[in-house]
Amino acid sequence: MLWTIIGSTAATLTMFSFIPQIIKVVRTKSAKDVSFITLLQLSVGVSLWMIYGIHLKDFIIITANGITLVTLIILISLYFSYVRKP
Amino acid sequence: MLWTIIGSTAATLTMFSFIPQIIKVVRTKSAKDVSFITLLQLSVGVSLWMIYGIHLKDFIIITANGITLVTLIILISLYFSYVRKP
Repeated sequence: MLWTIIGSTAATLTMFSFIPQIIKVVRTKSAKDVSFITLLQLSVGVSLWMIYGIHLKDFIIITANGITLVTLIILISLYFSYVRKP
Repeated sequence: MLWTIIGSTAATLTMFSFIPQIIKVVRTKSAKDVSFITLLQLSVGVSLWMIYGIHLKDFIIITANGITLVTLIILISLYFSYVRKP
């Protein structure tokens, strides 16, 4: 039970970790210090994790990485919409 | 074999995903657009993943999250050293 709570908390925190970054970019309308390579590398990484999860038929790996991928796509879109406007 | 490559690539990409962000902050000497809450949330998340990995005695979970934690600690240190200097 304790370990289920620790695992679930770990998954929830990392899965939604880019929400505060999205809020910050939206609020400040600035993203110039954010590394696009980091966002791209993470997007490719979590996409491969999803594919690996599909192979393992592991619903948790698929969902957790799917959610992170959605937040990363939102962040990349915001990055491009704000970085181009100085 | 193919699935081992996909899994390893996924792990490597996500594990080292903050290296480009560290390089960008060092190079530009600026981190004001980076969300500290995202860095903190991820640090707590990967620390719990490490603890969960220790419970599972899974060397890969421990190592991958340990490496990410080190890069996050470096990034948080850089964040505070640059954000305080306008």
